[in-house]
Amino acid sequence: MSTCLVAQSGGPTAVINASLAGVIRANQLNPLYDRVLGGIHGIEGVLADQLYDLTDLSEHDLELLRQTPSSALGTCRYKLKRDDEADFRRLADVMDAHDIETMFYIGGNDSMDTCAKISRYMAKVGYECRVIGVPKTIDNDLIGTDHCPGFASAAKYIAASVMEVARDCRVYNKGMITIIECMGRHAGWLTAATVLPAAKGDGPDLIYLPEVDFDMADFLDDVIRVYEGQGQCLVAVSEGIHYSDGAFVSEAKTSSTDGFGHAQLGGLAALLAESVKRALGVKVRGIELSLLQRCGSHLASLTDVREAYLAGKAAVEAATAGLTDQMVALDCTRDASGYRCQTKLIPLTQAANTERKVPLDWITPEGNGIRQPFIDYALPLIQGELQRPLAHGLPQFAKLKKILTSD
Amino acid sequence: MSTCLVAQSGGPTAVINASLAGVIRANQLNPLYDRVLGGIHGIEGVLADQLYDLTDLSEHDLELLRQTPSSALGTCRYKLKRDDEADFRRLADVMDAHDIETMFYIGGNDSMDTCAKISRYMAKVGYECRVIGVPKTIDNDLIGTDHCPGFASAAKYIAASVMEVARDCRVYNKGMITIIECMGRHAGWLTAATVLPAAKGDGPDLIYLPEVDFDMADFLDDVIRVYEGQGQCLVAVSEGIHYSDGAFVSEAKTSSTDGFGHAQLGGLAALLAESVKRALGVKVRGIELSLLQRCGSHLASLTDVREAYLAGKAAVEAATAGLTDQMVALDCTRDASGYRCQTKLIPLTQAANTERKVPLDWITPEGNGIRQPFIDYALPLIQGELQRPLAHGLPQFAKLKKILTSD
Repeated sequence: MSTCLVAQSGGPTAVINASLAGVIRANQLNPLYDRVLGGIHGIEGVLADQLYDLTDLSEHDLELLRQTPSSALGTCRYKLKRDDEADFRRLADVMDAHDIETMFYIGGNDSMDTCAKISRYMAKVGYECRVIGVPKTIDNDLIGTDHCPGFASAAKYIAASVMEVARDCRVYNKGMITIIECMGRHAGWLTAATVLPAAKGDGPDLIYLPEVDFDMADFLDDVIRVYEGQGQCLVAVSEGIHYSDGAFVSEAKTSSTDGFGHAQLGGLAALLAESVKRALGVKVRGIELSLLQRCGSHLASLTDVREAYLAGKAAVEAATAGLTDQMVALDCTRDASGYRCQTKLIPLTQAANTERKVPLDWITPEGNGIRQPFIDYALPLIQGELQRPLAHGLPQFAKLKKILTSD
Repeated sequence: MSTCLVAQSGGPTAVINASLAGVIRANQLNPLYDRVLGGIHGIEGVLADQLYDLTDLSEHDLELLRQTPSSALGTCRYKLKRDDEADFRRLADVMDAHDIETMFYIGGNDSMDTCAKISRYMAKVGYECRVIGVPKTIDNDLIGTDHCPGFASAAKYIAASVMEVARDCRVYNKGMITIIECMGRHAGWLTAATVLPAAKGDGPDLIYLPEVDFDMADFLDDVIRVYEGQGQCLVAVSEGIHYSDGAFVSEAKTSSTDGFGHAQLGGLAALLAESVKRALGVKVRGIELSLLQRCGSHLASLTDVREAYLAGKAAVEAATAGLTDQMVALDCTRDASGYRCQTKLIPLTQAANTERKVPLDWITPEGNGIRQPFIDYALPLIQGELQRPLAHGLPQFAKLKKILTSD
């Protein structure tokens, strides 16, 4: 029985399930496989032979799935052991037992690396199998694609939340400094998105990305200057900002509290708030957008949902065309006639383990703000709202039924 | 020239501007005053004679205002000095200079106390002035009203965010414990709202309110029990949980870091996460919903917006009927035929400085969960969504023009 496998990997996003729905729906519209199986908790579920049968998901369930945040199949951060073939052998056995001839893997750059390794191993042992990657990451750091499904919804959540926080912070007549921390260890795309409401006057006064070395003295000077000028200051920082020696700014605090000496990111907003409070003696508030920014499907971008869905469909179409070792990528144009996006394919190896950063010339020379080219790039991506199904005033999310298909 | 004054006070909410719009619109529909003036930054702006002229706000501007979070007039936490008549004298002078015959004050229990004091002083000095309060507080702790405008939108934001966080936390196969901190120093209404998605299986496993004394050993036992049973645990706590001696659980940390020894609330989620990590040695994440919960207008409850607007209109109607020293309250019924809400009036003194808590019999006997009566009470309040005007994929907020009206 002709079968394909689809799995999700890495951190959840608001639209990773839209890509899953795209894979399932594409095969319903133009059946290439008799069965579409889903790996529970990514590659770990495949190794453990824990699979859902997703072939005949109803149109209603697919529509719910398209709007459900976080990985409906579950996810993992498991890395296949390169030097130990046991994982790969086990994978081949499970795939063989289910007649799996194509694997679709929805994930970030680590996952594309996993795809490439699986493909190499299968070729080596003579198991005929196609591997197609579908990109997703809120970090937007994959090379070879205009942007990554998942980024735009997180960016929209961040931009809208910053607008609301800005309103709240500027409501008092007493001075107030607010520091908002966004996700992004090595690339500042999400933090840059805080600039999107700037045209409305609701953006931050200062924005710091990990693309530029952080200097605490310069930062305090910036904050004091803005605060003295307007009596308040709203700052956005990326969790991954670091000093010129590479040390994360957040490390100083966590290493002194967690006792393990790890660079455990997070808590940066509180640390910077404390530094500003000491320097200025005014009220400072640190806000960490936390998990909410990656799972906030109630502010998902319709553009993002549609593109994630299209990417899932394009993966099946690539398999239908007999291709393998490819990742679906987004090919976009922005000009006077508007924004257009279509899918293309790039070699898996091109995307694997890459890291695309915000171009330095999109950042102000002072390293504390974002320039117009980023706005031109990102604004089209956050357009459109989902008409979400609600029940009792709250969202409705898809729940997959656990159908174990081990033979 | 017959004039009224309207001002906003205390912490912002998602619907405090809907009440302001209600006051302005009621007077447009059935003009009682030639001018509607707005105090900039609450009572402080009145003392400083800084006022907006809001009389003729267009229908479009009023509609935007109705959907704009945070106090459009600005707010303050200033308390009129009871023992010093200077503030009251100054207030009477400004009101006299503008022929202000009625004051509408939108705020919480402190604000109702301010209203009562102003009214007493004006009566004492023979200045004829009506004072009507309009309730607002996300804390929902005012007595004499079924609930407070502002609560339901914050509750809806919290419930929807918890659903999304729950999805995110439960996506890994590795155990994960997540602790979500909600606002509420003395009353647990907002934290209780985390139970609303429970019927969908997306609520927290454990909920702790300040209505019940907190015990760290019991808490850790609870978390360990849930974690051992299902491999993960989602906890909601109120910022105001305290030990049986009254000390805030959050105090231990802040007093050691801020150097002032204040009970500076916040950071509780991180503190509890640290305690659980030490006890269990597993991955624990602390999430503080922070300001976002009170200014998240993108998840405002339409029911709340409508009721806040009605409360503003009812205040003008009360003044039209010649009443004074009253607060608008909400009178609601919930039965088989549904939920109905109308406004009524209660004496200001009844609402001033009160604090209504979650009834103890709405909390489980173990003190770690919320029972059905709360759901029956709160679920009707979070119904309905705003059709918000958007521009470039982001919300549009009202901006008042600064018209200084000092004569």
